[in-house]
Amino acid sequence: MVAGVVSALELLRIMKENNIDNYYPVEIAVMNNEEGVRFGIPVSNSRAMVGLIEEGELDNIKDKDGISLRKAIIDFGITPNLANAKRTKNSIKAFIELHIEQGPVLEHNNKKIGIVETIVGFDKYSVKFIGQSGHAGTTPMANRKDALVAASEFILAVNNVVKEVGLGTVGTVGELNLTPNASNVIPNYVQLSVDIRSTENDNLQKSYEKLVKEIETIKKQRNVDIEMKRTLRIDPVYMSKEMIDIMECIANKLNLPYMRMNSGAIHDAMVMANIAPAAMIFVPSKGGLSHHPDEWTEYIDLKRGIELMLYTLLELCKRG
Amino acid sequence: MVAGVVSALELLRIMKENNIDNYYPVEIAVMNNEEGVRFGIPVSNSRAMVGLIEEGELDNIKDKDGISLRKAIIDFGITPNLANAKRTKNSIKAFIELHIEQGPVLEHNNKKIGIVETIVGFDKYSVKFIGQSGHAGTTPMANRKDALVAASEFILAVNNVVKEVGLGTVGTVGELNLTPNASNVIPNYVQLSVDIRSTENDNLQKSYEKLVKEIETIKKQRNVDIEMKRTLRIDPVYMSKEMIDIMECIANKLNLPYMRMNSGAIHDAMVMANIAPAAMIFVPSKGGLSHHPDEWTEYIDLKRGIELMLYTLLELCKRG
Repeated sequence: MVAGVVSALELLRIMKENNIDNYYPVEIAVMNNEEGVRFGIPVSNSRAMVGLIEEGELDNIKDKDGISLRKAIIDFGITPNLANAKRTKNSIKAFIELHIEQGPVLEHNNKKIGIVETIVGFDKYSVKFIGQSGHAGTTPMANRKDALVAASEFILAVNNVVKEVGLGTVGTVGELNLTPNASNVIPNYVQLSVDIRSTENDNLQKSYEKLVKEIETIKKQRNVDIEMKRTLRIDPVYMSKEMIDIMECIANKLNLPYMRMNSGAIHDAMVMANIAPAAMIFVPSKGGLSHHPDEWTEYIDLKRGIELMLYTLLELCKRG
Repeated sequence: MVAGVVSALELLRIMKENNIDNYYPVEIAVMNNEEGVRFGIPVSNSRAMVGLIEEGELDNIKDKDGISLRKAIIDFGITPNLANAKRTKNSIKAFIELHIEQGPVLEHNNKKIGIVETIVGFDKYSVKFIGQSGHAGTTPMANRKDALVAASEFILAVNNVVKEVGLGTVGTVGELNLTPNASNVIPNYVQLSVDIRSTENDNLQKSYEKLVKEIETIKKQRNVDIEMKRTLRIDPVYMSKEMIDIMECIANKLNLPYMRMNSGAIHDAMVMANIAPAAMIFVPSKGGLSHHPDEWTEYIDLKRGIELMLYTLLELCKRG
């Protein structure tokens, strides 16, 4: 959030200092809670702006101490007013978000600017493996129903499946819990999470179908029951082609080392795309790190992002 | 413990009721703490009998509330006396232990008696996988150092390696912990336990060597550091061949449906074999269950075990 806010402020400062006149008004939208850490629900500011938050949500959604979203906003000194927050469709000419990449792609490609084409969609699954516990010494290998062995095969399958499906698709098993988790007992139960992201809904669906097949094979080979349940589906969101072209043209003129790329994380621009043409500019994250004390973007890199945003804005504001 | 104690008492009752005279004295050794649950150290009674417990151990070994083994024994109303507990080598003609199988082998083979040939030895390892965390959406598959994917490959390797090494060797990964264990973050660290058991030290060593090779391959393929450390090595222990032959002969005479087999769990007979010829009789565990409320052995099955123990004892006591 900080890089985005600082960049927007800097942009307005430059415009004022240079007495730049613009046909369309420029507005800064400072959004917090993109990550949804405290209340478990992300991008709540943009969701309010596009009218996707109902009054009830302010009261029903609570943090781990039981404090509602409404109370947290009031405690902060603001009166929640959803009607005021809401903007109507087509009332905004364009929305631009500058963000740190939160990944290693720019660094690996030796580029300084990312022009985002697609914010990936994703599927989340919860998968349960139900085997049978047994003594690690007295149960012959042939008689085992080892839930962790089955889960391990599935984890490798997730890794292979997304690679087969191809570029723009990634898959992660990040959470895994097993029972009883004792060194001399065969695990009888494993629960794990699957997170699959792709620029195409088709690829999410293909990954799902391949995983279902893999599960059938693993079930038979390992004598373990497996249940997979989808817990979330978010469609990919495409940034404005017109704005991408403008940005690319400007990046070329300014000799900025840019690349077109996708965003693997969700962003407010994804939500704003519901009511306005939206665009995103990525600046490099050192080592790909984010949500980490070592998160860092060089000033020169941020400056390049601000330049691209400034000239894109001027171009957009020119048009009648 | 209960099946063993009841069987021994029943055996003496039969001998008394039938006025059976024996050349060698018969003694019941009632041993607790075979499992080592409270103090973390198993087979402490037999270890005291063979002189493997030093005075210091009584004071240094404590339960989770800080109560020493010595204090626990005194609180129970007994004065610990290691010198009294100790028996000298060759002062005992034979040691027989009857135990529930704690596994499914007898049931699967439709046998009622197991004559134990070997109590398997085992290696325990702690294995660490050190990768790099990253955002599940923004980190391309090719850039990942996913500790859980590497660990999954290793878990399957453990399963394959012990099958390659062959019958009488089993391997289990029962404990696994990962960091940060969040659905949208690539795991950067996994620690897991490996438990490998075999009737032959050679097979333990072969398994180790194969795992070391597998680790080298996984390290390279997955770009993850792996450290494996042996935390325990216990050699296999062989039961007395003479007593096995006597028991087999009697089992045949009595028409008992028996089989020769190995014990995958450690037992007091393993320790007693240090100072006396030792033998073990297994009776079936329903469903292979042990340390579980549903643990069960049919009375008729226990009776068969007692019969075998009785006639073996009579045979042993006859000999001058």
